[in-house]
Amino acid sequence: MKDSAMLTPDEARALFRGGLRTPTAGWCAGWTQANLIAVPREHAYDFLLFAQRNPKPCPVLDVTEPGETSCALFRGDLRTDLPAYVVYRDGEPVAEVTDASEAWRDDLVAFLIGCSFTFEDALLAAGVPVRHIEQGRNVPMYRTNRPCRPAGAIGGPLVVSMRPVPAHQVADAVRVTSRYPAVHGAPVHVGDPAALGIADLDAPDFGDAVDVRPGEVPVFWACGVTPQAAVMVSKPPLAIGHAPGHMAVTDARDSDFLAP
Amino acid sequence: MKDSAMLTPDEARALFRGGLRTPTAGWCAGWTQANLIAVPREHAYDFLLFAQRNPKPCPVLDVTEPGETSCALFRGDLRTDLPAYVVYRDGEPVAEVTDASEAWRDDLVAFLIGCSFTFEDALLAAGVPVRHIEQGRNVPMYRTNRPCRPAGAIGGPLVVSMRPVPAHQVADAVRVTSRYPAVHGAPVHVGDPAALGIADLDAPDFGDAVDVRPGEVPVFWACGVTPQAAVMVSKPPLAIGHAPGHMAVTDARDSDFLAP
Repeated sequence: MKDSAMLTPDEARALFRGGLRTPTAGWCAGWTQANLIAVPREHAYDFLLFAQRNPKPCPVLDVTEPGETSCALFRGDLRTDLPAYVVYRDGEPVAEVTDASEAWRDDLVAFLIGCSFTFEDALLAAGVPVRHIEQGRNVPMYRTNRPCRPAGAIGGPLVVSMRPVPAHQVADAVRVTSRYPAVHGAPVHVGDPAALGIADLDAPDFGDAVDVRPGEVPVFWACGVTPQAAVMVSKPPLAIGHAPGHMAVTDARDSDFLAP
Repeated sequence: MKDSAMLTPDEARALFRGGLRTPTAGWCAGWTQANLIAVPREHAYDFLLFAQRNPKPCPVLDVTEPGETSCALFRGDLRTDLPAYVVYRDGEPVAEVTDASEAWRDDLVAFLIGCSFTFEDALLAAGVPVRHIEQGRNVPMYRTNRPCRPAGAIGGPLVVSMRPVPAHQVADAVRVTSRYPAVHGAPVHVGDPAALGIADLDAPDFGDAVDVRPGEVPVFWACGVTPQAAVMVSKPPLAIGHAPGHMAVTDARDSDFLAP
């Protein structure tokens, strides 16, 4: 099989449609990955407004028409072409599946939300290590004690992803990721996890723990799993998200999101 | 009376609430001005999605809760504190008023959309002339032949504002305004108006014509009147917008919208 980094979006989506379940960090180098959250049309305004009010964790890249399962950004089938999904009913995660066709409904509106994987190639190119790629793990993600600004019936905590960065490269990490405001942009926090209400870096709420080595600082970016944390708090009757770290591989290029 | 550029947002809004009708270019230097479009809640999702799909003309700065008449960005009363409003019924502008209280309904959602006036101080600081301020006129605005990407029932043409710029300063104008992506950012077109379907620069669709002098190039920026052009095409039962050029003076600072 080809190296996963060398696959096209179509090739990767065909593998996922075939049942392959894997975190997608490092897959399809240069192609943009996105978070998925699909909710019934009657809840779509609150979700879209929640995203507008919380642009750091929820940068909207595209939105489907109700009942559509693809869009300009994603020319596959959103029900089947991600490696794994979480189905929520009344805010409870009731199933983790590799094919969401059975739970999908005709009135669902799907939001594709920017993902920090987009700037990881740029971090690597700047010589900043990306530990979860090095260690072949899913990125660690944490609920924080920072509330998002609510919208209508939707609210919840900010979720962050964490990458350990050598102290002398933190400035580089800030500089590089600032150039990608549409995919979470600059970090929201550098250093002490406790200040975000994170008790233990080794026990992430989503994804896998990674090694933080001596001389490294934990750096936290807003994360597109935030809408799923909001689903768990706000309890719409149905929601379908990607399994954290198991993203939608889109037909956009990372360079499309580089600020001028 | 104090120079209009020196007024605080509260002072300006009190004057407008008192009935003063004037274009607001150059008012309240350093304070952000915004476009207004208010529509019934049942049409709000389509408008918000229209804005998301057309971020150059429709950068959303804030959205009210249904029935609210102020928000974090605008601590005045949206029904009375703009210098002039246009009321649309079924897409037809039926009244231009200095107080929209009578037409306002409890189910209206108001969108505040970024305005290119935000970057005019930065243009002036860079030595780029801003002709409509020099001439004490409203900025000229034009419907173009470029369709926006529609959303649900809402669609319409891109509207642009025009500033004539000396040829040797066009690069400066691009560079300066690129740094304000949340308030229309870089120009959408430089040069030939006919390429945008604009037949006559001296006959703007909104605002006033300004002088274009020898050696100057017309430069076009996406304009926040675009949602009102969409109202005219898409015909929601009720909509209330600002009179073009007669903006909402907000409590945000222009510097808040300077990209990092």
